[in-house]
Amino acid sequence: MTSHVCLQGIFTPNLVPLDCRGDINEPELRRYIDWLIAKGVHGLYPNGSTGEFTRFTVEERRRIIEIVSDQTRGRVAILAGAAEANVKETIKACEYYHQLGRRAVAIVARLYYKLSPASVYAYFKEIGRNTPIDVTLYNIPMFASPIDVPTVRRLADECEKVVAIKDSSGDIVNMIRMIQAVRPHRPEFAFLTGWDAALMPMLLIGCDGGTNASSGVVPELTRLLYDLTVSGRLDEARQVQFDLVTLFDTMIYSAEFPNGFRAAVDLRGFNMGIGRQPQSDEQVTDLAALSRALQCLLSQHGFTDEPIGGCSTSSGKPDSVGGELQTQDVSAIVHTVVAELKRRGLV
Amino acid sequence: MTSHVCLQGIFTPNLVPLDCRGDINEPELRRYIDWLIAKGVHGLYPNGSTGEFTRFTVEERRRIIEIVSDQTRGRVAILAGAAEANVKETIKACEYYHQLGRRAVAIVARLYYKLSPASVYAYFKEIGRNTPIDVTLYNIPMFASPIDVPTVRRLADECEKVVAIKDSSGDIVNMIRMIQAVRPHRPEFAFLTGWDAALMPMLLIGCDGGTNASSGVVPELTRLLYDLTVSGRLDEARQVQFDLVTLFDTMIYSAEFPNGFRAAVDLRGFNMGIGRQPQSDEQVTDLAALSRALQCLLSQHGFTDEPIGGCSTSSGKPDSVGGELQTQDVSAIVHTVVAELKRRGLV
Amino acid sequence: MTSHVCLQGIFTPNLVPLDCRGDINEPELRRYIDWLIAKGVHGLYPNGSTGEFTRFTVEERRRIIEIVSDQTRGRVAILAGAAEANVKETIKACEYYHQLGRRAVAIVARLYYKLSPASVYAYFKEIGRNTPIDVTLYNIPMFASPIDVPTVRRLADECEKVVAIKDSSGDIVNMIRMIQAVRPHRPEFAFLTGWDAALMPMLLIGCDGGTNASSGVVPELTRLLYDLTVSGRLDEARQVQFDLVTLFDTMIYSAEFPNGFRAAVDLRGFNMGIGRQPQSDEQVTDLAALSRALQCLLSQHGFTDEPIGGCSTSSGKPDSVGGELQTQDVSAIVHTVVAELKRRGLV
Amino acid sequence: MTSHVCLQGIFTPNLVPLDCRGDINEPELRRYIDWLIAKGVHGLYPNGSTGEFTRFTVEERRRIIEIVSDQTRGRVAILAGAAEANVKETIKACEYYHQLGRRAVAIVARLYYKLSPASVYAYFKEIGRNTPIDVTLYNIPMFASPIDVPTVRRLADECEKVVAIKDSSGDIVNMIRMIQAVRPHRPEFAFLTGWDAALMPMLLIGCDGGTNASSGVVPELTRLLYDLTVSGRLDEARQVQFDLVTLFDTMIYSAEFPNGFRAAVDLRGFNMGIGRQPQSDEQVTDLAALSRALQCLLSQHGFTDEPIGGCSTSSGKPDSVGGELQTQDVSAIVHTVVAELKRRGLV
Repeated sequence: MTSHVCLQGIFTPNLVPLDCRGDINEPELRRYIDWLIAKGVHGLYPNGSTGEFTRFTVEERRRIIEIVSDQTRGRVAILAGAAEANVKETIKACEYYHQLGRRAVAIVARLYYKLSPASVYAYFKEIGRNTPIDVTLYNIPMFASPIDVPTVRRLADECEKVVAIKDSSGDIVNMIRMIQAVRPHRPEFAFLTGWDAALMPMLLIGCDGGTNASSGVVPELTRLLYDLTVSGRLDEARQVQFDLVTLFDTMIYSAEFPNGFRAAVDLRGFNMGIGRQPQSDEQVTDLAALSRALQCLLSQHGFTDEPIGGCSTSSGKPDSVGGELQTQDVSAIVHTVVAELKRRGLV
Repeated sequence: MTSHVCLQGIFTPNLVPLDCRGDINEPELRRYIDWLIAKGVHGLYPNGSTGEFTRFTVEERRRIIEIVSDQTRGRVAILAGAAEANVKETIKACEYYHQLGRRAVAIVARLYYKLSPASVYAYFKEIGRNTPIDVTLYNIPMFASPIDVPTVRRLADECEKVVAIKDSSGDIVNMIRMIQAVRPHRPEFAFLTGWDAALMPMLLIGCDGGTNASSGVVPELTRLLYDLTVSGRLDEARQVQFDLVTLFDTMIYSAEFPNGFRAAVDLRGFNMGIGRQPQSDEQVTDLAALSRALQCLLSQHGFTDEPIGGCSTSSGKPDSVGGELQTQDVSAIVHTVVAELKRRGLV
Repeated sequence: MTSHVCLQGIFTPNLVPLDCRGDINEPELRRYIDWLIAKGVHGLYPNGSTGEFTRFTVEERRRIIEIVSDQTRGRVAILAGAAEANVKETIKACEYYHQLGRRAVAIVARLYYKLSPASVYAYFKEIGRNTPIDVTLYNIPMFASPIDVPTVRRLADECEKVVAIKDSSGDIVNMIRMIQAVRPHRPEFAFLTGWDAALMPMLLIGCDGGTNASSGVVPELTRLLYDLTVSGRLDEARQVQFDLVTLFDTMIYSAEFPNGFRAAVDLRGFNMGIGRQPQSDEQVTDLAALSRALQCLLSQHGFTDEPIGGCSTSSGKPDSVGGELQTQDVSAIVHTVVAELKRRGLV
Repeated sequence: MTSHVCLQGIFTPNLVPLDCRGDINEPELRRYIDWLIAKGVHGLYPNGSTGEFTRFTVEERRRIIEIVSDQTRGRVAILAGAAEANVKETIKACEYYHQLGRRAVAIVARLYYKLSPASVYAYFKEIGRNTPIDVTLYNIPMFASPIDVPTVRRLADECEKVVAIKDSSGDIVNMIRMIQAVRPHRPEFAFLTGWDAALMPMLLIGCDGGTNASSGVVPELTRLLYDLTVSGRLDEARQVQFDLVTLFDTMIYSAEFPNGFRAAVDLRGFNMGIGRQPQSDEQVTDLAALSRALQCLLSQHGFTDEPIGGCSTSSGKPDSVGGELQTQDVSAIVHTVVAELKRRGLV
């Protein structure tokens, strides 16, 4: 981790609370942003995949950035998701977010069609040539055309406005290859991982930070993992990373993405509302089990006084006797939940 | 092929011509639609994947449907692509297209996130419950969450407004499974294949028609293949199908989809303009070779007088001596083109 | 289907009965071969994937070919599976099978490592140069390195001993591409499909036959499907193909491959014994349901008097009132079985 | 890394030198083993995927274990690859390797068919019940049926003879899940990674060692990486890991696996002979470039006096001025090689 990179630390790809009519719940969004900043995240990343950017209209996406920018008031950096229907619309979004403030940084990805590396290059090159704001490449092969190593290198070499990559593949060797290809020529270029379950090893092989959905649920733990890892307290970091894998797996596999995360944020005391993707009757997230898993996890790492939505039927401390025991308990709970979800066909 | 299905024959997923500013070229689009209808296609399918619906804004997508509806004036059926950002916006589009005329039929697909079968069901169920217009399910696993057989069956059983499925997977056995699961209860439910390269066998195992991108380039050939197949002239049909595979492969693998199709329509005498996906300098489609392949193919099947964009440097007839010879020539040309494209890294 | 190809019709990739010690049950294998020939299959294909060639030792594989050759006595053609550990051992097998009789034809595939097209070519080229017996390429991408179209073409052009390809991918467009690439120069080269669920459309686009596991269970039906298709009785053929998809899906998805086929052959009156792949306690194939599905299917197509292992608790005729009804019954049974199997986690 | 696990450190999945007739070159194999042990590897792993076990006969596989056992004479531990055609044959191999000496440990994997988790469990359970020797599970999803986390846990819980897993997937999060699932109940159970490119982060999240093909080429570097990582010298370790990624990528992508490794061992002064998988004329590994990459890499880390096959046309030191410079040089060379290989269609 070099000290002069442009982006560093934990960025939260924040969810968007909705009201009973399904519209953006602005007061709750503002309250949620304040809470995330208070809990220690280094930045916010509105309109990412976790923030369901594709399920909002163009106007709503702009409104979300406006609210986040206004509420943040420069306290933390903002990476504004800026993927629109085509290059022209994306550049328009970049220009608008640029007006909103100097700290904002646009992230773009490409949707739907499977593009060849040559086309991925051409797409970002066109944006890189015309954007007034710094651009972070966004690689998420499970949802969009992958950005391969030679393309990252070429864009980094040719476009000074391209300043970082956010990679959600979880492929640690590919991350090494990208860092090898880019860092010698662009030492300030930043590498962020979007795969929470590998945050610690990603930081250890050279990443500068992460855009991690779990930081929207347990920002104190994600921040702790970052701090423990970069300060070399690896035994402690490993335990937090292992627990985060358990939590991440529960949230990501227990419901349609990102509904597990929406349910979990509810448990932290927010009202996320009903998501925009309709759910069939069978798809009800088991909040009780998720609640207990969250409670255990937080109490175990010393965040016991945190309310989790009033549903904490656990007495709070019985799991806290010994570290080993607790982890197994969490694990047992998680396995029970997952088994139950599988039984219902939700996984 | 039963006679009472709601949708039958060849529907063209039409491309959209753009002018020099990158905006919709309305006069050329109207001219193109007239030509397609004159060449015999049974219907039009604007705002499909071939029509690059994701690269247009909401307003542009509506304008495309308006132009197509107005120009068609009821001569052929229209399947209007209606996939929008979320269920609410999609239903709004359905309502608007419903107002444009009774014959219009909406097609919806779901983008970006990988959805479980339960969520795919919930999504279409919500639409099926609220749409004023008939809905065709659109299964295109290479770009969007697949719609599996039990989900198709369940939606067909529960939603009378769901009247057809358009499947672009090219998986013939899955098509058999879908027909087996749905036709006994919904004999009028239509099955359309979007995979041109398997049109003949798909019709032979029970499909009612196709939404085939090649019908936007060689509508006379796609229509001929349909007619030969449904009238049982299989030896002739097989030869046309084989040639269509060659042409389809050339267009789909010689350039980023759907640019090969855009270039080919140019060769038929239209001005498609530059597409919205930027191309790098290396990605120039070899129009000369594609032109020659098209010319050969058309002349071979008796459509020799057809101009192909003024660029026919071939004398038109040297390839026409014997059927066998021509096919091999076409094949040789195609292989040369593809080899060259591979050499340039375009494939 | 040209009349002068070297291989034509339905070849059964026969299973191998085992005795109570897990060794080859020779008398039962001989009885099974006689039955298959009597039921009308055009050839046998011992030591294929269905025949679990990888689970036998080198010596056992040779013994299987000896028994099949001896029992067949030239009544039908034999494709002898000849894949061994490396080129030298495979050529040795080819030589041995050549000695066993002129009609034998070797099939080779390559295991384990993912090979590039260049290596697949080099491997078959080396065999093609040294084999005394005709060779059928065996493409089964789900289990082994794929043989792509240019490689098939190159081997067909360069090796006269390579006389056919057996393709188990089920990809009908790829089959068209292979036929286009090879048939003009090698009109006698044979194309066989190993994907039973697409046998009819594969024959209609130009295949010469199939190596179909279902022909080891219901040889009369697979043969009937072949005969109806090549004689142009497409409506009848389609119905048989649809039923075969149902049966094929039941056998292939209801148990670990090829155990569903082993169980089904038991129901036809043979004693296949316990397979060599151990099964956990949960993995017991539901023979009662499979038995009923088989019984229905056979009776429906006029093969009612056929005993199916003495377990036919159905009275034989209640399902036979109307064709439509029967098919739905079969379908209902199949769905019940599959649902049950899914519940047990076997699928 | 706990101190009481049964297997720890770097195990070399050794290649097998062949003579001009293609048979095992015993003297060279013995010389190679001595060299590996002298260079510091903690163990040997004959008959792994790198050792091309599937390309040898049963008798040859036994002979390889005999030679390795005899030459090692207890100096380092041996994991003997023991995958045979079926359970019975595999258990026979286990019994034989058990007789050869107490330190030998069998590794088994399952080939060809895609098995369900239930069948993978049944297979290993049967072996675990009958083996006289400790068994290491071998998970290599790119070549064989994957062993999922619940199956590893179940086998670890039920079979005390199952003492370790070797995982070649490179999936670091899955490794975390396996360690979480097994270590609480079986603290001595060992986790080895077979993916060299992720060795450092795998050790940091809790692995006990690796079975790494690169340790057969640069055993001093792989050992150095292990030592630096476990002693917490992470900045140095990271640099070695990055270089190892470069070398690993060169060897694994520059030729058909494992031919890049065979060529590289030749460069270290051994005569590996021609491999058993035939190569087409185009597939000649560019030894000059590989040689230079190896030379640079070794000299850079202080192993400059090492002969690399007499082909070192580089003067040995020009790249050694500064660490940064060298890495870029290596990188440039590697990129040139890979580009050239791509041009030739070898990659």
